[in-house]
Amino acid sequence: MLGPLLLIAYEAVSRRRDAEPAAPYDDIDARDIPVIIAGFGRFGQIVARVLRVKGLTFTALDSSQTHVDFVRRFGNQVYYGDASRLDLLRAAGAQTARVLVLAIDDVDASVRTATVVREQFPQLRIFARARSRQHAFALMDVGVTEIIRETYASSLELAGTVLEALGETPASAREAVRRFRQHDQETLQAQYRVKEDEEKFLATTREAAQQLERLFEADEARSEATQRHG
Amino acid sequence: MLGPLLLIAYEAVSRRRDAEPAAPYDDIDARDIPVIIAGFGRFGQIVARVLRVKGLTFTALDSSQTHVDFVRRFGNQVYYGDASRLDLLRAAGAQTARVLVLAIDDVDASVRTATVVREQFPQLRIFARARSRQHAFALMDVGVTEIIRETYASSLELAGTVLEALGETPASAREAVRRFRQHDQETLQAQYRVKEDEEKFLATTREAAQQLERLFEADEARSEATQRHG
Repeated sequence: MLGPLLLIAYEAVSRRRDAEPAAPYDDIDARDIPVIIAGFGRFGQIVARVLRVKGLTFTALDSSQTHVDFVRRFGNQVYYGDASRLDLLRAAGAQTARVLVLAIDDVDASVRTATVVREQFPQLRIFARARSRQHAFALMDVGVTEIIRETYASSLELAGTVLEALGETPASAREAVRRFRQHDQETLQAQYRVKEDEEKFLATTREAAQQLERLFEADEARSEATQRHG
Repeated sequence: MLGPLLLIAYEAVSRRRDAEPAAPYDDIDARDIPVIIAGFGRFGQIVARVLRVKGLTFTALDSSQTHVDFVRRFGNQVYYGDASRLDLLRAAGAQTARVLVLAIDDVDASVRTATVVREQFPQLRIFARARSRQHAFALMDVGVTEIIRETYASSLELAGTVLEALGETPASAREAVRRFRQHDQETLQAQYRVKEDEEKFLATTREAAQQLERLFEADEARSEATQRHG
């Protein structure tokens, strides 16, 4: 059954300039769908595919006509539009879903969506992708706690492989990456606490380099500890 | 000691329109440096920091003036310029380095660099970042085998966390992600074998969606296996 709000969203989506001829929505009840994936690019798609393999359904929201209507055949829903719009979120079942995967790559759109969701659907747990440390800070500002930087895990994984190529054992490489990650997470939290200054600092490329320099300096203690004990 | 080729590269870099006043290079011998990191953005920087913590030095190559000269203070080198340029690669010690971390985000520049390195410095092991499956295929075409898609590991990690939020045990979530990854890797290899057709298919957004649809279909068997046994 489609409720009135879903119909409003549906009409709004249909009015989009580049909208396709309206296809009837499947008769999936949004209340049965536990996960909303906002942002259906490369990042959101991988999450969607893992859920799919586990037999879990999702509602995809994407700002552009990405032609992924076919996901409906697999028991999912998809809407095209701005994920920060309250009517679209309601249509997507934000009142009853349990998890929002915030995989939007545009920083402003991501933070705007997180803000609306935190205010209007506080029961919805947000798991967010961040482009950068600054994006992560902006999400933390609106109360998001589960955040992963988009290239972070891949770069750490590659670093571990490089350590092995240079002669470390797999266990030792893994341990080095684990420790680095813990240390970097602590550094991120510490930076967040002095973020006001950071924002001033980061106005230019040069200042972004200064941030990296401070990270290298923060790594210094870790480095010495590793050399000594590791 | 600076060799003549290094001086050529140095002068070429100095001629850059937006070049800074030339700073003297440190007297680090490139032959002592085991790793070259091409592309010193967010991805390359994380790899650099992990190496640093393990006491390993690197030479950073970046196409733009990123003001990271400070890394020299930590025993590293940095050059600004096109990493596919033979003179710059030689200056960076590509003859004697053991590992190239190819962390350039621009697809063309990345593939161009991989091509030159494979031809000219076959002893240098390449560990590459790819933006997408297509970028990965292009790197495979020129003989690169160690490739990680840039948002891949983070999206899988987030997917695992979401599975836990929906009630899976940590071990079960981890296993689901591990299996998905193995299956996706096999799918990538299979796609690579029929890539000629893929390239035709992927000319438009709609066709990229068709690729995703085929991935969903390929996931189907995996999904059924999981539902039955998992």
